[in-house]
Amino acid sequence: MAVAGSRMEALASQPDSSQRLGIAPVGLGSIAGVFMDAVGKTKNVRLAGFVTGHPEEKGKKFAAQYGVSDGAIYTYESMKQIRDNREIGAVYIALPNSMHCEYTVRAAEAGKHVPCEKPMAISSAECRRMIDACKQAKVKLMIAYRIHFDATFQHVRQLVQSGALGEIEAFQGGFYGLKNKQQWRLQRALAGGGSLLDLGIYPLNTIRWILGEEPKEFKAFVSTRDKTGAFSEVEQSVEWMMKFPSGVLASCGSSYGQSGTNFLQINGSTGHLRVEPAFVYGDAVLKLSGRSAAGEITGGGPVNNPDQFVTEISHFADCVLNNKAVATPGEEGLSDMQAIEAIYATAGAPIA
Amino acid sequence: MAVAGSRMEALASQPDSSQRLGIAPVGLGSIAGVFMDAVGKTKNVRLAGFVTGHPEEKGKKFAAQYGVSDGAIYTYESMKQIRDNREIGAVYIALPNSMHCEYTVRAAEAGKHVPCEKPMAISSAECRRMIDACKQAKVKLMIAYRIHFDATFQHVRQLVQSGALGEIEAFQGGFYGLKNKQQWRLQRALAGGGSLLDLGIYPLNTIRWILGEEPKEFKAFVSTRDKTGAFSEVEQSVEWMMKFPSGVLASCGSSYGQSGTNFLQINGSTGHLRVEPAFVYGDAVLKLSGRSAAGEITGGGPVNNPDQFVTEISHFADCVLNNKAVATPGEEGLSDMQAIEAIYATAGAPIA
Repeated sequence: MAVAGSRMEALASQPDSSQRLGIAPVGLGSIAGVFMDAVGKTKNVRLAGFVTGHPEEKGKKFAAQYGVSDGAIYTYESMKQIRDNREIGAVYIALPNSMHCEYTVRAAEAGKHVPCEKPMAISSAECRRMIDACKQAKVKLMIAYRIHFDATFQHVRQLVQSGALGEIEAFQGGFYGLKNKQQWRLQRALAGGGSLLDLGIYPLNTIRWILGEEPKEFKAFVSTRDKTGAFSEVEQSVEWMMKFPSGVLASCGSSYGQSGTNFLQINGSTGHLRVEPAFVYGDAVLKLSGRSAAGEITGGGPVNNPDQFVTEISHFADCVLNNKAVATPGEEGLSDMQAIEAIYATAGAPIA
Repeated sequence: MAVAGSRMEALASQPDSSQRLGIAPVGLGSIAGVFMDAVGKTKNVRLAGFVTGHPEEKGKKFAAQYGVSDGAIYTYESMKQIRDNREIGAVYIALPNSMHCEYTVRAAEAGKHVPCEKPMAISSAECRRMIDACKQAKVKLMIAYRIHFDATFQHVRQLVQSGALGEIEAFQGGFYGLKNKQQWRLQRALAGGGSLLDLGIYPLNTIRWILGEEPKEFKAFVSTRDKTGAFSEVEQSVEWMMKFPSGVLASCGSSYGQSGTNFLQINGSTGHLRVEPAFVYGDAVLKLSGRSAAGEITGGGPVNNPDQFVTEISHFADCVLNNKAVATPGEEGLSDMQAIEAIYATAGAPIA
């Protein structure tokens, strides 16, 4: 830890490009915008290129905005040339879900490290292919689970693992929002599924991470109440339950059709706690409440102080620059995808 | 309604015994104590007798406390003589679950009206027997769902039914508490089941009541993490889901092994609200929070102002004295019991 600390200080005092991981986002949609802003707040990452279907518009705009040369703008067709650009050490996959696998494999084949947005892909078979490709190319693969890098959730996990709530009995978690206007999310071929893949993955992954167990049984219902036809390809709402080997139960839900709430509740034998809001970002301030044997539980804080995205990307760069193990590797994305497949299967709903 | 109102005023101004429904509790445990205190706060009910296995101790103690003659103390064996006591118009069933059916039938056969604690019984077959016995004897049967008589929940139901949250999409509800020390609740022969029958029935019944639909599909897990053997006969925890004909989903849970929280969350297409705490009584102050298209939702209030139990018992007496339909009749208990049987069946757990 001391070594890592002094390394970070060294980086902070000498922020020249050689000590920063050069990164190129693939797909310049809204999440890439959040990512690029976060990169500017790190001490060990810099934008070094772009891969986009719109090089003349989006490519040149962002290149000018972030001080990247036009020569580092690639299209999906020319992306393989990225192999020859030594300034680019990693490629950030911010494409629709169904393209994560192909572009992760292409980035790995170009010798680049890969931070990839969640959900990792649209099937566990794709996840395995991505893991294998990155292993073969000896590049690091991180699935962008920003919650793992949030201070409030790290505190919650520490509380749970320290026994502050006694023996954990059950979780409830949900991420409910209104219809997403990004049309690709409503197309099965691009999204792979509905709200579960986009929103439900938050309580799913967070519960697995905090509990440190893999769920072994699943039960689920999907439902679409919308009558406009917008959800003809993917489900609007899912409620599902998981049972873990220890007997811990979890009830979760996600929806594209519900006025937004998002929360995580943890019930133990001697205490309970709740994070609400839990899974939003931007200006969100997470609120922690509950009670343990030691008294009232309060706390929480802004997700941007420290910024979940900044901490996440800095961690990835640190892993690449100093050859450390990634906290949220491809195997984490694979486990979620296996759970998601099991949830859809028990609900009788298709996936991908 | 105007007639009912002036009738109530008449009762209020002339509180003599002839205009009050005389009632005798059967089983003088903790809930009967709450009930007897509540009777004293009504204007149309009075205690008129007792049925107890301990006539010399409990019987005489309560008779003295509430000004009832010792001649109105009955045992389980002598209960049939209650038929000849014209002061007693109703018998309140406050026994362990497995005895509800037998004593409801005995009370009906004695010509007495019956308010019965929830759960109504330990099987839907028993519920039908109770309904039939009361119909045949031409007496009224009420299942004591105190939540229906709570001002906060009446407001919540009105909000939902007025469309304040838009189209309802999903419910989450839970009632989690620590191990119950009343040993009969842990004995299958007396309790019929575990936390679901005692605590889970609250979110189950409240959701059915607010939504005004009957669930048609169920999925559930039961779990017991306790290792002391205390839960060798009944489950400690249940998490279950319901799907309604409209597509509305509900995720619920109950437990005897979890540090206590109890809540009801309602998500609609344009708003959401939460009641927490929701299902406790005594000094509890229910808290309402949420957001609708019209703005923030706040509110809630003490369950004892007006007291849920007082309102409930007064309603029953009003129905008896003025021949009105009971708001929570036996059919309401039967519907819950059918749901409970379906929940246990899908969880692979036994009942009764």
